[in-house]
Parts: sequence; structure tokens; C-alpha cells
Amino acid sequence: MSDLPKRIEIHEEGPREGFQIEAGPISTEDKVRFCEALADTGLHDVQCVSFVDARRVPGMADAVQVAQMIRQRPDVRYTGIALNLRGYERAVETPLHITGGIQMSTSNTFSIHNTNKNNEETLAEQRRQMNFFRESDISVESAIVMTAFGCNFEGAIAPATVVDCVGKLLALAEEYGVQLDRVRIADTVGWASPLGVQRVIGAIREKWPDLKLGLHLHDTRGTGMANALMGLQMGVASFDSSCAGLGGCPFAGHKGAAGNICTEDLVFMAEEMGISTGIDLDALIECARMVETIVGHPLPGKIMHGGSLSKFRS
Amino acid sequence: MSDLPKRIEIHEEGPREGFQIEAGPISTEDKVRFCEALADTGLHDVQCVSFVDARRVPGMADAVQVAQMIRQRPDVRYTGIALNLRGYERAVETPLHITGGIQMSTSNTFSIHNTNKNNEETLAEQRRQMNFFRESDISVESAIVMTAFGCNFEGAIAPATVVDCVGKLLALAEEYGVQLDRVRIADTVGWASPLGVQRVIGAIREKWPDLKLGLHLHDTRGTGMANALMGLQMGVASFDSSCAGLGGCPFAGHKGAAGNICTEDLVFMAEEMGISTGIDLDALIECARMVETIVGHPLPGKIMHGGSLSKFRS
Repeated sequence: MSDLPKRIEIHEEGPREGFQIEAGPISTEDKVRFCEALADTGLHDVQCVSFVDARRVPGMADAVQVAQMIRQRPDVRYTGIALNLRGYERAVETPLHITGGIQMSTSNTFSIHNTNKNNEETLAEQRRQMNFFRESDISVESAIVMTAFGCNFEGAIAPATVVDCVGKLLALAEEYGVQLDRVRIADTVGWASPLGVQRVIGAIREKWPDLKLGLHLHDTRGTGMANALMGLQMGVASFDSSCAGLGGCPFAGHKGAAGNICTEDLVFMAEEMGISTGIDLDALIECARMVETIVGHPLPGKIMHGGSLSKFRS
Repeated sequence: MSDLPKRIEIHEEGPREGFQIEAGPISTEDKVRFCEALADTGLHDVQCVSFVDARRVPGMADAVQVAQMIRQRPDVRYTGIALNLRGYERAVETPLHITGGIQMSTSNTFSIHNTNKNNEETLAEQRRQMNFFRESDISVESAIVMTAFGCNFEGAIAPATVVDCVGKLLALAEEYGVQLDRVRIADTVGWASPLGVQRVIGAIREKWPDLKLGLHLHDTRGTGMANALMGLQMGVASFDSSCAGLGGCPFAGHKGAAGNICTEDLVFMAEEMGISTGIDLDALIECARMVETIVGHPLPGKIMHGGSLSKFRS
């Protein structure tokens, strides 16, 4: 395990992932309370809301209010995402830290089903967004490759296809004079195995040895944490995850919509392996228990139910 | 990942782990139906019941009936466990395949809490059992080291302590002229991290390079599958696991009693990495869904809810 990073950064996506999928209704106050509690754990990046069409995602109807109500700590970035220009226009009016992102799916069919645009049209849309980011002084920090390990429409995805997508995203960034902070590799629909992670990360590293990579993993088929371990072994030091495993709940009939890997389980694993996260695990476990009460049904996180080891060690 | 085994054997413990902890009541017929379905998936070893005191474990009151009713396939071993001589005496009267086992905990305090005996008394009890096994013509196949990664009473456990326990168990086996098939290393209370697995397995391998090791992992803190991955990377080719993750249910208030790692999730991960299990994953997923209906509440297995990839590949 010689490539293990000494420290990892965790991008918390629980509030956005969770509140967009939970049947609710969940009060604006509870959403704010959860975001504020997360920011008190040592997390430096909390994705609070998504600026999407409230008719499609009723749980995000109060996104602007949530963004306005959060009492911000100076050492934490409270972020929000948008999927199109209209969303970005709403987002930048709030006190959240809004950054631009570029994205591409390895699968043309997935793109069409997900956004009504094929990959070529997606690239054209990205250019319109890049122009908007430039005009609006929004910095562009990361790119994401979706369905990097497999797609329910096109099946297994070859690592070379992911490399191709990364190349296109890097070229797009360069075209706009943007220096990306990182490229996130997403297992959007839960196809990844540790071998897949090894191959895909390995193929990208071979071409761009110094490119900073992030992993965005979903635990649809039970391999989420093993995939994260393989990421760590490959030297990946940036992860997206969700407190309590928010973001999907197989128990409520959201089939195939399993949440991100669970933040506090990831923090536990990393810290037990001597990898620093900067996060107070016990405080984070309290956040997970809080949000389980807020959503009103069991969430998939493990250590929130099993308890940390701190009381046995002290 | 050069030490990956080409093939692994999986010892299914779901029926015993599950039905001893579920509040129930669960009908004898349902227990039998589940054991029979598991045996149709390619699993070669199904642990059906535990011969324990029905006053302490009401769910095992019908252990003898379950054992008698199962229609046995010739290519499957239907096993049952016992914790003491009285249990073994009941067990050997049934049609199950009963083997003897020897065990030791790394933690004297755990032993006392678990069995009312300290480690020295446990060793004496093991000798009484070994005599009984010899007299009763019961073969002794495996040894198990419990709390090999940590203990809620004694805290972190040094790999050298595990090595010491393995040595004592091997000496005990030798004393009775027994050739053990494997030594199982158990994360009884969910302390293991991948680093712990690497260290403990590494320390044992250093002393006994050719000893066949098995891992018995619980997913108390979310690292179960990552620990299994590390086991595979260390060349471990024998795992105990539970269909659907049966054996503990944080949602029902069994705090700290999280189940074994989930068999079908493990099968999925292994097969996706090119490691053969001999098990029909889709058939096993159907077993998991069957037992979720039987117990009447959600179980922690993931792929049983997310679905396998076979329909996307065909």
C-alpha cells in the first residue's frame, strides 16, 4: 500500500444528494441545521443545495432560502450546484460559493437519457456555460467524467473511453484558459469494482501522471468502500461522499439510486489506516444521526449505528 | 494485486447468523426453504443452525427439526455449530455434517464476558471437547481466532497476540494429531481496517507461510468489504459471509451486532475482479430477497436492492 496518500480531502455532498431524493417534506430549518452541523466537523467543503427546477425536484424548492439562512464559518466552503445556465443565474445571487464545472459521460446513450443531449451537443452546451462562467467571473475548478465504469445502456466502459473523455475535458478547459483543480471520476450507476478502479485510474495516470483525480463513488452493489480503498491504494486523495450515505435509499423503493459512499465510514477507514482527513469522526457521526432523525427512516451508513471506537480506546 | 487468488471458497453463515438474532418468530418451514434455496446457488457449505440453549436463543429452538427437514443435495455440506458438549451431543444426532472446531479469543476479558471462562479455562474446555470429538469420531477441521483486530474490553489487539493465539491453536491440534483445514481470523466486534487485515494476515503468513487462512468479517463500521478486498490482496481464499448481510440489524436496535459481510456482495466483487466463486449470483440475490421477505424488514445487503449487472450485459 505504498501509494497511500498521507491526507485526503472529502467533498461532502449529503445535503444536496439527500434532500433532492427524500420524499420529505423536510423543513428549511432542518436542512440549514444539518449543513451547519456538518461544517462544524472539520469538513471544508459542504455541498448544500442544487439549483434545479422545483417542479422536477420538489425537495430543492427552498434552495435559495437554505443558501441564505446558513450561518457561514469562514473556514468552510458552502457550495451549490446547477445543471444549466438558468440554475447558475439563480445560484450566483445567493451567498454560496458557486464554481463552474464541466462534465461529460462516457456513454452517449446515458447523456441522451440524462440530459436530452448527445455527447456532441453536451460539449456545445459546455461551451455556452464556459462563456457564461467567464462573463460572470465564476471560476471553473473541476471536471467530472460520468458513468466511468459502466452504463446501464451501453454496458461496460473501456478505460480508453474514460481517457478519451478526460482528454476532451482537459482540452475544453485549455480552450478557455482554465486550470482545473481536479478531474472527478464518477461511478454514476454503480458498476465499479476495485479492479475497474485500478484499471481506469491507472489508464488516466499513465497519460497524465500529475493530474489530480477525485473519485465519486456510489454504493449500489456493496463495493463502494472497497472501491474507495483501491482509490487510496492508487494514490487518489480526493473523494466525494455523503454523510449517513444519504442520496438514495433502497428501502424506500428508489431502485438503482443508491447513495454515495458514506462520509463517516470513509473517514473511519482512512483514519484507521493512518490517513488524515481533518474531520472529527464523533462529531460527524452525530450529524449522521441527526439527519436520520430528520429524514425519518434508517440510512445506510454503518458506523453511525455501530458507533466509533473512541469510547473503547479512551 | 498480484496475490489475488484465482478462486475463493465461501462458507455461508446466513441461516445460523440470522435466525439466532431475528426477533421472529420465523417458521421452521421458512428456515428450511431458505437453506435449500442457498444450496441451489452453487454454495458448497451452508451453516443452517446452532445447537444452543433455546432459553437463551429462542430462534434456535427448532434447530433439530430444521436439520431433519432439509432435503440435502449430495454436493453441499449442511452444517451446524455447537458451543459446548451438550450442543454437540444434540448436533451429532441430526443429519447435518457436524465437524469439531477449536477457538480462542485474543482477549481474556472478552472470553470471560462471552463464555464465563478465561483463556486458560477455555483451553482446558477445548481439550475436553477434543477428547469428545475423538471418541465420537467427529473430525476437527478449523480453528478460529476471535477478536483478532480489536476488542471492546481490551482495545486494539497487536498482531503478535494473534500470532500467539494461532500458535496455541496449532499446538492444540497437533497434540491431538489433528490436521486443520484452515485457521479463521475473526473480526468479531468490527474493529478491523484494511491496514489491520494487512498487518495481521502478514504477521501470520510470516510465521506459517503455507497455513490456509480464512477471514470472518463483520461490517459493523462500513469497512467489511474493503477488509475483504485486502484479504483477497493478501491471498486469502476462504471467507465466511451471510446472505443478505443477515446476522445483525442496526435498524432494529441490535447495536454493535452488525452482520457478517454480505455473501452476494462479496460474490459480485470477486467475480468482477476475475476471481471465481462457483456461485450463481442472480440465484443468490433471489435467496437474499426471499429471506428479506421471511424476516419482514430491510436487510443490509446492497446488490439485492441495486440488482446485478447481468441484465445490462446480455
